[in-house]
Amino acid sequence: MHNPACPLCAPDDTQHLIWRNDQLRVIAVNSTEFPGYTRVIWHQHVAEMTDLDNAARQHIMEAVWAVETMMRQWLAPSKVNLAQFGNQVPHLHWHVIPRWQQDTHFPEAIWATAPVRSEQQQQQWSAMKAHKENLLPAYHEALRLALDALRF
Amino acid sequence: MHNPACPLCAPDDTQHLIWRNDQLRVIAVNSTEFPGYTRVIWHQHVAEMTDLDNAARQHIMEAVWAVETMMRQWLAPSKVNLAQFGNQVPHLHWHVIPRWQQDTHFPEAIWATAPVRSEQQQQQWSAMKAHKENLLPAYHEALRLALDALRF
Repeated sequence: MHNPACPLCAPDDTQHLIWRNDQLRVIAVNSTEFPGYTRVIWHQHVAEMTDLDNAARQHIMEAVWAVETMMRQWLAPSKVNLAQFGNQVPHLHWHVIPRWQQDTHFPEAIWATAPVRSEQQQQQWSAMKAHKENLLPAYHEALRLALDALRF
Repeated sequence: MHNPACPLCAPDDTQHLIWRNDQLRVIAVNSTEFPGYTRVIWHQHVAEMTDLDNAARQHIMEAVWAVETMMRQWLAPSKVNLAQFGNQVPHLHWHVIPRWQQDTHFPEAIWATAPVRSEQQQQQWSAMKAHKENLLPAYHEALRLALDALRF
């Protein structure tokens, strides 16, 4: 199942690719505000989790849990946010977003209007974000190894 | 694990209860804007999916898939939105939200600022929403049976 009009069917995300197998790929989202933001994308053009059979559903969720595990271990977020929407691009993908109490939107969803922050808070988040960005290569490498170890 | 300060540990949601077992409960979210909005709440006070062992993780996801299946069958949404955030209440719960192209926020997340709608669009959604609300008792009853059938 391939839809020529779908941006996730013809991916231009190879530069952000962390890992892939025959069923799915894991990419680093190019986000300046949420370092470590990761997406798990099913290759086939299906819209909903319940369009997959049990084995495929478990396969993609195992990948999501691997992402969450390594994200917590390497980036130590205050909270992990998981979302599968697809309203704009109805091709199955999971957002895995590390959240920190200091980030631009906490405790709101990243899609909500950002709460007002003081200049001091903004500076604190900038410094913290730079620190987290430095950890991304180690996080990505650990995630690759964790996904390899799943032996799908 | 019980946290006396947590609103999901001392639930006042019994009036909206659709189904429960020893591990989790499924409730109808009291939403005027998104008819059919459903939440799956793990009883234990844990924050993240990866705080659960494999069996528990699979248990809660099976309940989420049952909700999605019955939601699609009875309410025919344009898209299902799944989210596990917990930034405000770090007690594991899944949002399962039926979305329609005509709803107040489509294709944005329900937490985003609503796009501008014409009066005609608002009226169309009001009529459609009333129709979907009429289907809720049948959806809830079918969901109860589907969850019973899982025999956790």
